[in-house]
Amino acid sequence: MTNLYEHMRDEHKISPAQEYLRQIVYGGNDGIVTTFAVVAGFAGFGAEGAAEVGAIAVLLFGLANLLADGTAMGLGEFLSARSEQDVYRATRAKELHEIQTNPEFERLETVELLKDRGLPSEDAETMANIMVRNPEYMADFMMQHEIGMADPTNEHPALNGLATFVSFLLFGFVPLIPYFLLPAGPDTFVVSVIATGLALTTLGLLRWRVTTEGLLRCVGETVLVGGICAFVAFGVGLAFR
Amino acid sequence: MTNLYEHMRDEHKISPAQEYLRQIVYGGNDGIVTTFAVVAGFAGFGAEGAAEVGAIAVLLFGLANLLADGTAMGLGEFLSARSEQDVYRATRAKELHEIQTNPEFERLETVELLKDRGLPSEDAETMANIMVRNPEYMADFMMQHEIGMADPTNEHPALNGLATFVSFLLFGFVPLIPYFLLPAGPDTFVVSVIATGLALTTLGLLRWRVTTEGLLRCVGETVLVGGICAFVAFGVGLAFR
Repeated sequence: MTNLYEHMRDEHKISPAQEYLRQIVYGGNDGIVTTFAVVAGFAGFGAEGAAEVGAIAVLLFGLANLLADGTAMGLGEFLSARSEQDVYRATRAKELHEIQTNPEFERLETVELLKDRGLPSEDAETMANIMVRNPEYMADFMMQHEIGMADPTNEHPALNGLATFVSFLLFGFVPLIPYFLLPAGPDTFVVSVIATGLALTTLGLLRWRVTTEGLLRCVGETVLVGGICAFVAFGVGLAFR
Repeated sequence: MTNLYEHMRDEHKISPAQEYLRQIVYGGNDGIVTTFAVVAGFAGFGAEGAAEVGAIAVLLFGLANLLADGTAMGLGEFLSARSEQDVYRATRAKELHEIQTNPEFERLETVELLKDRGLPSEDAETMANIMVRNPEYMADFMMQHEIGMADPTNEHPALNGLATFVSFLLFGFVPLIPYFLLPAGPDTFVVSVIATGLALTTLGLLRWRVTTEGLLRCVGETVLVGGICAFVAFGVGLAFR
């Protein structure tokens, strides 16, 4: 049976590392977009506007958004992951209660659900009868086929939130770095665009690593969304000239 | 059976309206945080700084972030929802292939998984035998119990993305409204804080409406996260004085 267990463990279950890698990809993406929008908006506003707004504004609003949005994203990830677990537990407890108080009704429900999934009547009856004898399993069955909820109870909301927060700050800092080192001008914007493009490519490669999607799609989509967002922010800056 | 079907339809399945309401809640929250960070950062910078940075910067960076981040969030929601569906379909097709090419191996796997879920051996054997005769159902079973993925194929990625985008813009515009109507000073910030507090409370009430969570928790958490984010941004502004 060793092969079987290894197969079940290795080939399928999504590893915790992959779970956090997912938070890193989405958190980092949000971080880059947030600060890149500030940088691109400022660049769109142009030189004559820059004098009016002040180059320091890029760092002020860039850092304000980076830290505030990063905190909100991290906390939001933590809270929503936690409440998702609470909702799952509450819904499953409700199902279990229904099964224990009204087993015949739930048994009929199960037969119908199994027939909807393509099982012949007698197979559906047999399985439903087994499930009624095993309420805990029947509850899991109902969560999938009647309610359509995946079990999130083995996730770690706090670590998910932390991974999102840290990734948001690290990647989101990239578009701002040139503005710490160089005077805020067109050249600095070009440097920032290049650095941001590299950071987005890195995220696209990470996404490719966690999903079963194609390389081109992962990198292409990630860079494209970042580019569109910068284009929009640049346009807003132009409109302010 | 009418009662049964009504029960299955009404009491359990999450309605599409609720699905989009979820996008509205998260999208709106991100929108508010993004613009509120700009407003709070500017307020923290204070009067003397305001002269240096220019009041127009609040609208420039507020709108640049609102439109750029909203676009990125909406597109991101659309793309990730769509690729989630692709990953689910690909993984399920792989499972189905394994079942058809190596049914005995998958049958043993199923027996083990069912025993892990607390079924007695003979019940597990009976169910596994039924499943081998019904590969489509067995694939669904594997997706839940071996791989732990919920079926996202009845979601609408484009509508999810649109709901996120629209909600991001509408709610995210709230903190900026006072700066369109009043001179950018301390009083304007107070008006913005009040307007933002009301918007966050509305989102908390919407969240309460979609989840089975408590009212106090939904509204409390939503307002608290917004407050913390504003506090952080204000602090960044102070540091720039």
